[in-house]
Amino acid sequence: MKKIKAKLTSPHVWIFIVVTALIVPFSAQARQDNLQQEVRKYRTSHEHKIIDEFVELLSIPNVSSDHVNVRKNAEHILKMMEKRGIATQIMETAGNPVVFGELKVPGAARTLMFYVHYDGQPVDPSSWTETHPFKPTLRPGKLKAGTAEPKPIPYPDPSTKYDEDWRIYARGTSDDRAPIIGILTALDALHEGGIPLRNNLKFILEGEEEAGSTNLFPFLREHKDLLTCDVLFMCDGPTYYSGAPTLFFGVRGITSMQITVYGPNASVHSGHYGNWVPNPGIRLAHLLASMRGTNGRVKIEGFYDTVVPLTENEINALKAIPSYEAHIKENYGFSGTEDYWPSLLEAVQNPALNVNGLNSGWVGDQARTIIPSSATAALDIRMVKDNDPKDMVQKVINHIKQQGYHVVYAEPDLETRMKYPFLARVRHTESGYKASRTSMDLPISKLVIRALVAHSDKKPVLLPSLGGSLPIYMFEDLLQVPIIGLPIANHDNNQHQPDENLRIGNLWTGIETYAAILMLGED
Amino acid sequence: MKKIKAKLTSPHVWIFIVVTALIVPFSAQARQDNLQQEVRKYRTSHEHKIIDEFVELLSIPNVSSDHVNVRKNAEHILKMMEKRGIATQIMETAGNPVVFGELKVPGAARTLMFYVHYDGQPVDPSSWTETHPFKPTLRPGKLKAGTAEPKPIPYPDPSTKYDEDWRIYARGTSDDRAPIIGILTALDALHEGGIPLRNNLKFILEGEEEAGSTNLFPFLREHKDLLTCDVLFMCDGPTYYSGAPTLFFGVRGITSMQITVYGPNASVHSGHYGNWVPNPGIRLAHLLASMRGTNGRVKIEGFYDTVVPLTENEINALKAIPSYEAHIKENYGFSGTEDYWPSLLEAVQNPALNVNGLNSGWVGDQARTIIPSSATAALDIRMVKDNDPKDMVQKVINHIKQQGYHVVYAEPDLETRMKYPFLARVRHTESGYKASRTSMDLPISKLVIRALVAHSDKKPVLLPSLGGSLPIYMFEDLLQVPIIGLPIANHDNNQHQPDENLRIGNLWTGIETYAAILMLGED
Repeated sequence: MKKIKAKLTSPHVWIFIVVTALIVPFSAQARQDNLQQEVRKYRTSHEHKIIDEFVELLSIPNVSSDHVNVRKNAEHILKMMEKRGIATQIMETAGNPVVFGELKVPGAARTLMFYVHYDGQPVDPSSWTETHPFKPTLRPGKLKAGTAEPKPIPYPDPSTKYDEDWRIYARGTSDDRAPIIGILTALDALHEGGIPLRNNLKFILEGEEEAGSTNLFPFLREHKDLLTCDVLFMCDGPTYYSGAPTLFFGVRGITSMQITVYGPNASVHSGHYGNWVPNPGIRLAHLLASMRGTNGRVKIEGFYDTVVPLTENEINALKAIPSYEAHIKENYGFSGTEDYWPSLLEAVQNPALNVNGLNSGWVGDQARTIIPSSATAALDIRMVKDNDPKDMVQKVINHIKQQGYHVVYAEPDLETRMKYPFLARVRHTESGYKASRTSMDLPISKLVIRALVAHSDKKPVLLPSLGGSLPIYMFEDLLQVPIIGLPIANHDNNQHQPDENLRIGNLWTGIETYAAILMLGED
Repeated sequence: MKKIKAKLTSPHVWIFIVVTALIVPFSAQARQDNLQQEVRKYRTSHEHKIIDEFVELLSIPNVSSDHVNVRKNAEHILKMMEKRGIATQIMETAGNPVVFGELKVPGAARTLMFYVHYDGQPVDPSSWTETHPFKPTLRPGKLKAGTAEPKPIPYPDPSTKYDEDWRIYARGTSDDRAPIIGILTALDALHEGGIPLRNNLKFILEGEEEAGSTNLFPFLREHKDLLTCDVLFMCDGPTYYSGAPTLFFGVRGITSMQITVYGPNASVHSGHYGNWVPNPGIRLAHLLASMRGTNGRVKIEGFYDTVVPLTENEINALKAIPSYEAHIKENYGFSGTEDYWPSLLEAVQNPALNVNGLNSGWVGDQARTIIPSSATAALDIRMVKDNDPKDMVQKVINHIKQQGYHVVYAEPDLETRMKYPFLARVRHTESGYKASRTSMDLPISKLVIRALVAHSDKKPVLLPSLGGSLPIYMFEDLLQVPIIGLPIANHDNNQHQPDENLRIGNLWTGIETYAAILMLGED
């Protein structure tokens, strides 16, 4: 580009630039189409083999606490990976093992690492709809709410194609064994298509994500050197509602707290004392109302001060995403949203103060005409990049103090109760997840976006941050590497619930998505 | 007085007035002292007989649902009353019987009726402190909280006097069998002192007050003619904290309601949706905060409009009552009160909006990081004279509407949920107790006050209204008669709880109080 710039005055140069601008994308597009076509060709001609291999994996129970079967998963996955030429090992932790794999490519420009977890949530077979969580079952569509329809169908014979809208029901189909079959099939397709790899690949498959990842971080610390890479892809979670290939560049952080305000030390008769003994229910109402509007806007001093704003690119990426707000409203039966931010997508790019629960005295049939002795609110704070959990909690505490409360951190004794007319107890988690956000403007981010845009039928959805929280910051802090989320499951996969499922079409798209990412690089 | 007025110009008249003004009260005082002395003389010389008779009554179990024993109470009380020359009958209702008695006095100026209930609250003997609820036990003082001290003592031999601070522990000692022995002993004392009765007396003793008085009001309607009187004394409840003779001229009314506000139709993830899906917890907080300050002042339009203000006499009566606020604060472990009214006593003369309970999502160990689907508050409204329960509830509903809510009265369906951005469900009791308040300025009220002032050691406590609620308005509506509350039990009698007790001194004072009221009349 330097050379061209130097010749900007020459009219020939302009012609060169214009022609290049037209040809280079076309030529890249041609190669990219070739990649997508090769992968799709492989998939359409191997659907039965792919599904068979997936079903075999899904048949091994994988509940995190079932250590014997979880290890069987690890051993099975090791074999699947070795079959693809990946140097794989089962690495022990204090809990379930990590499956680690590496595929070195001579002359590779960079190393990509993929994180997947192969364990699953607990299951209660009796609450699954006419299926067993570890007998993967094919249904010709999504189970209609509250019914057992559509009924399971047999796996088709080799002459019948899988319909994209069919779904496989089993624990761990979507969360999170789909990426395993997706990535390995992408490798098969590249191999069969004679497309040489251009990036070193590393794979880290965790076996106790659903049990809180207790042993993962000691593992990461211990094996930091093994885990060097240029970018880490978190292959977990669902895509955006539209089903388009989705990248998320961050997650919100989270910390929780509980606030209790006090009235009398035992419930008292609301007739004898109503209007005089302090009512903790109304005190809590005033305190919460002072913290936040019904529109979501937090009124606590400094709550938004440390927010790192989105860049123009990130804002544009959000604006390009089709809205599913009407769908969500209909699904959850409400019409009025909190409207301080113009859209759901923008709202979750900002810190939130959520009331998770309220409790005081009794309601419903148990209601009694009393002034309760206390009232408690459970809150969480969802944070964005550079919000510090401790600082955010402290801001809430400062706010409570500004409302005239004396704040304590344990159940107050009589002396304290008699000393302070307004008394609040705060309990908060010592730890919280920091938010994490990889800039979309980094060269590696641009490269990833470009690869996905080039090799996808649908325009990819680029999310600066998910609304939810994952301890990605720990990977970030330990490995000092950009982290990008790369989910493939359908959004309505019943994650963490009975009847977990994967839509076949999502797996097909996922294979192409992973192939595009595996082949990442300047075209 | 007319005659005197006519002669106001004569100097002799002035002398007459001054002398009369000095002599008449002295002469009345002399007679009154005589009455009190006669009653006290009788009591001090018959303490053992009085307590023996009381203990015999208390030994008969009286739990409302124990119909057999409740009837034994009725039969026993009938005999006690007949012994005093009261024409007594056991009158059937659909439930436990009413004991009705009448004592006609030739030439009586008026008829006084006394209401007492002889049934008691349920008992769980295992939770009583080393005593059985129907084996009346004497202790040399009040049980210290959380201990079995002081230990029971034997009933003393006839040569030993009862100490005023000793207490009898049994169900129904205070609530509400003490007035039975109190009134009958007062009659004995008047009889023994040769003091002729001057008022007709009627007695209505209910047998299922603690079971909700279901059959009392049909009984009152049926026997309305039998129940004519000039004043009805409700002999139930405790005296003021000071233990001074207490009259209450009214009670607050009560009605209850529950308000539910809605978010999504199921809890949703606070990360995915926090800042956008409406949070019902915060909505409820804002709604409640808009209704009422933390100082007790209700901000609902018209909430105080129908309040009948206290008269000057009633205000002065309140001001004359010693404050026990410091005691209550210490007892219930709080220091800051709601302070819109200058004192507890004045606060309960006004309507109140009490938050009885709050519920939304989960708190404590069960807390989860969600946006709950709804939030509910249980409220009661305590009303004063002329507040109409339906009108007060409607004012709250109007207020909710003014905050932008669409109000429904059943669980909203999807269509309703989708139509109204702010949706509140209100549940309220169809019935409520109206308040009741007999004016202290009525001649009969003045007469009662005068009698009690004249015959008491301590200055009587005159309460325009109790803070609590009783369905006195039904007696008022049916019988169209002034109603005055005349309790004698100690305030710390453990009413409705294990270890119910009566302080002996309160019975002694009660006997004198009842004698004064029985002898009510212009001196």
